[in-house]
Amino acid sequence: MSKIEISDPEDPRLAPYVSIRERDLTGRSDGRFIVEGKVTLAILLERSRFEIESVFIGRSRVEPLAEMLAQVPEGVPVYVAPQDVMDQVAGFPIHRGVLACAHKGQPVGVEKLLEAETLLVLNGISNHDNVGAAFRNAAAFGAGGVLLDEQSCDPLYRKSIRVSAGAALWLPYLQSGQCDDHVSWLENAGFDVWAMTPRTTAEELHRLEPATKTAILLGPEGPGLSDALIDRCRPVRIAMAGGFDSINVATAGAIALAHCHASSGSAKA
Amino acid sequence: MSKIEISDPEDPRLAPYVSIRERDLTGRSDGRFIVEGKVTLAILLERSRFEIESVFIGRSRVEPLAEMLAQVPEGVPVYVAPQDVMDQVAGFPIHRGVLACAHKGQPVGVEKLLEAETLLVLNGISNHDNVGAAFRNAAAFGAGGVLLDEQSCDPLYRKSIRVSAGAALWLPYLQSGQCDDHVSWLENAGFDVWAMTPRTTAEELHRLEPATKTAILLGPEGPGLSDALIDRCRPVRIAMAGGFDSINVATAGAIALAHCHASSGSAKA
Repeated sequence: MSKIEISDPEDPRLAPYVSIRERDLTGRSDGRFIVEGKVTLAILLERSRFEIESVFIGRSRVEPLAEMLAQVPEGVPVYVAPQDVMDQVAGFPIHRGVLACAHKGQPVGVEKLLEAETLLVLNGISNHDNVGAAFRNAAAFGAGGVLLDEQSCDPLYRKSIRVSAGAALWLPYLQSGQCDDHVSWLENAGFDVWAMTPRTTAEELHRLEPATKTAILLGPEGPGLSDALIDRCRPVRIAMAGGFDSINVATAGAIALAHCHASSGSAKA
Repeated sequence: MSKIEISDPEDPRLAPYVSIRERDLTGRSDGRFIVEGKVTLAILLERSRFEIESVFIGRSRVEPLAEMLAQVPEGVPVYVAPQDVMDQVAGFPIHRGVLACAHKGQPVGVEKLLEAETLLVLNGISNHDNVGAAFRNAAAFGAGGVLLDEQSCDPLYRKSIRVSAGAALWLPYLQSGQCDDHVSWLENAGFDVWAMTPRTTAEELHRLEPATKTAILLGPEGPGLSDALIDRCRPVRIAMAGGFDSINVATAGAIALAHCHASSGSAKA
């Protein structure tokens, strides 16, 4: 392990870790992202497709995390600093004392993603908690990946990763362009595309037998999917009590994904 | 409407609104709670069982909200102040410019709650988002109420109310004592009590036909329900993909509630 002690918060090697929150808000254009906490770092080291650039931990965490740090690839620097230096660099208290920086690298190819049997498709999901929760649910119910449009937020935003329970680090996904194009891709690849909507004329989820290839399309909370998108797809609704047709969008996805998983061979067997 | 103009942030009539966040954290022992935002205030006025004590709004909101304010009961003061006075009192910027204070009053009687066909039962859910989401889901899928133990957090905490989409204000609930006693009440009232657990020996949710009276019991994220509690109940699990048996506790509740609702007469009809 290449352990490098740092005592100066201005050390240029720590540049990717400076003012994390502010850069979370504005977005990073350098292709890097930050993960926080030991559980997430473990996933980054063990099952992620992303190339790790460096690790940055509090001095007091070196010993308790020795086993995990031994997995850091050869040549990847592990910067070690006192907690107060770490907090100064990041711009807020890093209670967990564990940060790492990785490269997004090349996105997953669309052909690869379309090989999945079940896909989650996000249209305009601009809330980091919802994107993170959507990934966690997709992983829990064995979806083969996630397709997001440019209006949805970045799954590799620090909070999305945490809420995803690390799933954003290993579940294949592609974020690109417009949802309208995604629906075309899915149709061409033989997917039955379920547009989740509260429309009363939509088919009820619990009566549906999922096709071999099913895509679950979720729209933004509040406005929901556009009529044009719903009309192109198979409108599906979750039966709810009268007068209250509102659940969280990631929760709606979870219910649809759970239904597909329960109806699939693996859960039936 | 009893509109009262306030210009002094120290005005004693605004005492319940002072330092809202700090008092959210420590909890209020005076039986009052605060709601925030016009959607929540509308629910408080229209369908809540709670007695409203006062309303506190920014001056610029009086006119746009005139219709809603006309519903404030006779004799309930509507305090009006400039935005900066409001922010000073509350201790942080009240962007929505709408606050109200209400009394918790008498809790719902347990006998009343046990008349429900479907109940959600929360054991040690100490996260406000999760409690709020649990209420939202219970309302969406027509549960008759929620039973919470003392270890769970207060559904009338400001953030819980917001996340519940206001359901915490009208869905009957009772927070009291220990979950062990709740299970006894439920058993005596003829409920089939489903203890949600990832145990592989548990019955799979999607294969179950809900009983006439079903209670869905959720435990804390991380540790989950205790073995002793699970063993007293009917262990039920949600089928998930191998190697990832973790979804958010409120989401697990939503999936179980959706299943009960879909299996009930109303959704079948």
